[in-house]
Amino acid sequence: MTEAYGLSIPDQLSEVCTPERCAVLIYDMQNGIVPQISAGPEMVRSCATLLEAAREGGYRVFFTRHFFLPNNVAGVGQLRRAMVWQRKKRPEETKPFFVQGSPPWEIDPQLAPREGEIAIDKITMSAFEGTFLNLAMRDARLDSFIIAGIALEVGIGPTVRHALDLNLCPVVLSDACGSRTEELRKQTLTSLQETGEVFIATTAEVVSVMSRHRHSS
Amino acid sequence: MTEAYGLSIPDQLSEVCTPERCAVLIYDMQNGIVPQISAGPEMVRSCATLLEAAREGGYRVFFTRHFFLPNNVAGVGQLRRAMVWQRKKRPEETKPFFVQGSPPWEIDPQLAPREGEIAIDKITMSAFEGTFLNLAMRDARLDSFIIAGIALEVGIGPTVRHALDLNLCPVVLSDACGSRTEELRKQTLTSLQETGEVFIATTAEVVSVMSRHRHSS
Amino acid sequence: MTEAYGLSIPDQLSEVCTPERCAVLIYDMQNGIVPQISAGPEMVRSCATLLEAAREGGYRVFFTRHFFLPNNVAGVGQLRRAMVWQRKKRPEETKPFFVQGSPPWEIDPQLAPREGEIAIDKITMSAFEGTFLNLAMRDARLDSFIIAGIALEVGIGPTVRHALDLNLCPVVLSDACGSRTEELRKQTLTSLQETGEVFIATTAEVVSVMSRHRHSS
Amino acid sequence: MTEAYGLSIPDQLSEVCTPERCAVLIYDMQNGIVPQISAGPEMVRSCATLLEAAREGGYRVFFTRHFFLPNNVAGVGQLRRAMVWQRKKRPEETKPFFVQGSPPWEIDPQLAPREGEIAIDKITMSAFEGTFLNLAMRDARLDSFIIAGIALEVGIGPTVRHALDLNLCPVVLSDACGSRTEELRKQTLTSLQETGEVFIATTAEVVSVMSRHRHSS
Repeated sequence: MTEAYGLSIPDQLSEVCTPERCAVLIYDMQNGIVPQISAGPEMVRSCATLLEAAREGGYRVFFTRHFFLPNNVAGVGQLRRAMVWQRKKRPEETKPFFVQGSPPWEIDPQLAPREGEIAIDKITMSAFEGTFLNLAMRDARLDSFIIAGIALEVGIGPTVRHALDLNLCPVVLSDACGSRTEELRKQTLTSLQETGEVFIATTAEVVSVMSRHRHSS
Repeated sequence: MTEAYGLSIPDQLSEVCTPERCAVLIYDMQNGIVPQISAGPEMVRSCATLLEAAREGGYRVFFTRHFFLPNNVAGVGQLRRAMVWQRKKRPEETKPFFVQGSPPWEIDPQLAPREGEIAIDKITMSAFEGTFLNLAMRDARLDSFIIAGIALEVGIGPTVRHALDLNLCPVVLSDACGSRTEELRKQTLTSLQETGEVFIATTAEVVSVMSRHRHSS
Repeated sequence: MTEAYGLSIPDQLSEVCTPERCAVLIYDMQNGIVPQISAGPEMVRSCATLLEAAREGGYRVFFTRHFFLPNNVAGVGQLRRAMVWQRKKRPEETKPFFVQGSPPWEIDPQLAPREGEIAIDKITMSAFEGTFLNLAMRDARLDSFIIAGIALEVGIGPTVRHALDLNLCPVVLSDACGSRTEELRKQTLTSLQETGEVFIATTAEVVSVMSRHRHSS
Repeated sequence: MTEAYGLSIPDQLSEVCTPERCAVLIYDMQNGIVPQISAGPEMVRSCATLLEAAREGGYRVFFTRHFFLPNNVAGVGQLRRAMVWQRKKRPEETKPFFVQGSPPWEIDPQLAPREGEIAIDKITMSAFEGTFLNLAMRDARLDSFIIAGIALEVGIGPTVRHALDLNLCPVVLSDACGSRTEELRKQTLTSLQETGEVFIATTAEVVSVMSRHRHSS
């Protein structure tokens, strides 16, 4: 750990991934999203492995749950996005993929949040925009997070970028973040790597760090 | 309506409370909160009246749902607040009043959100801090809101103050916002009135405006 | 210091006001604002005393600088506020009190920021809304702040309330926060005191704590 | 213009780039940044062309001005970033590129903000994080912006991504956004294009739209 100006600046994965500094964030692993990619079930298994380590290690755990506002509540930007994504000419021809409270909005039952774990509804790509995640993390003096979920190139990328602006240190689990295609996966990981500020590691590596920390404490 | 610099600046209640500009916000009317004040059932009835008018008039409707992070997830500020509120010397002696997903966290069943209405979990007093409410309202080009719920002096006051900083125009329903005491009610309404920027009106007045608008459109 | 759940929760003024946890915030002490209240020069002296202690103690120091958008850039909320504050019927009859870059926008020369101190332009009452203050404080692991400036009832009150929602611990300098009237001063301090979460202290008390901390470190 | 649910959803560049909906944002065109890329002077000329059209057309104009906190004020994230960017092993070996108020922080004199134009200091990549830009734009009912400046891949990319989460519609001037290399330029533009939600156009195209709008109004 580098100490300077009264602050501790972590530079190793093992210094970042401690329960005193690091949240675990399961991103959008919802019934309506997991089946959209072929590696969905594998991602569920990786997230379950991460969750198990987080629970044993006493990490603070947050889940995000995306949803779409119904058309009659939605605004200009969301309707425009729906037209682009769904290739429709008229807003009325678009449909929210799923709405708050519906079965596809629920988190995959294999990863269901337990007592003491927090679910955060969001309508944005970044898990930090329009949510209390940063607020809760900062109050608990957390300044880093391990992220896993779907999809790397759609929502996790923007979340990681936004986190850098918030001075949070992201740890991306390369084999627990799903993508629509292998090419998109590689491209997004490369671009995050190029920032020089993002840790990219496998679930096994991170779980091993989490477990070592537990045994030494 | 005052027109200037290409903008329409409403100055009458009837100009503010239209479905094109105004959200309806039911604040913290949860099972764990309504019974805390003697006028709880009356507040439920007033909110139901407001909701009925909002549904008939096609207003966008949002509900806030407060919750407390479990102690093992909470941070410095929340634990300190719990010690103050619950008059305890040690954080471990405090308990979150209610947590996410528990029965007291649910919205009073008489006011249950319907399809197309949005519930917003929050851990703050201001309904605009750490939530997507402003984001959703602005995207739908809403710049005012009618607020009703509990408690006026605890959460609604800070929400209204924060709203002014966000350049939103608040309409507070004087007989649909509950307080622990009549004195606190008067004091908070007076202090909001003194800003000169907050509309304070009865449910009947606002519902009448909402209905007039409907019949003229 | 109370230790629990891996966190240190300060409960004494002396635990809150350390350079490791606490920022010093000089609020809106601008040429256009100081002369608006009769106690202006006295407030300048108190702020200077606080600043001296902050500089000697190695505290991070921030200044806020309010300004008003010119009418042709302003929006609905700001124009409406100007009409209310300036008692005008038309937006075109209002004038921004002062704009960015003009002499009244400058910080009082007796309190001019030195190298290594940060000035934050804002268009809101809360020093935390639409600014990077919280971001900078959290990155430096500060979770409290000592606030002094003008005016207590207009801008400092909302800043302190907002801070509580952000889980920051405010220390209000009772004799270094100016008000238009003594009645407003008392009323605002009482209402902040009633939260149970705000420290209210004199400049002498806080400076003494800041100095003790220095000598013991 | 597509009309639906009481909203006007623009889908042509000419509908987006009107003074009623669209801000002009000159991004980080500062003395300390412009000379860092070889095309700097060309970018200044393009920005000047855009500014001229904006001034003639009555658009609201904002400038961002990046700066770095001095090391003794900075926090964990900023010091970590400095170590990565400057390839140093110790925070004390890093230096802020430039600080607030210094000559390299000033906006290039050829683009100096005029009366009625707003400068926004920031410490983030996204022009919308920790600033009042979104607040000011939304109050003026603007929901899109034309962006030009430096550097496309470092700061403008994250600003545009963040804007999408805020439901703002970005217009990126392909020949007025500078990059360190032609490859980075192409790569960033391609990735923004792929969102399907970002307008990418030349300065000439946008200026022509701005001018047509003026003549028809």
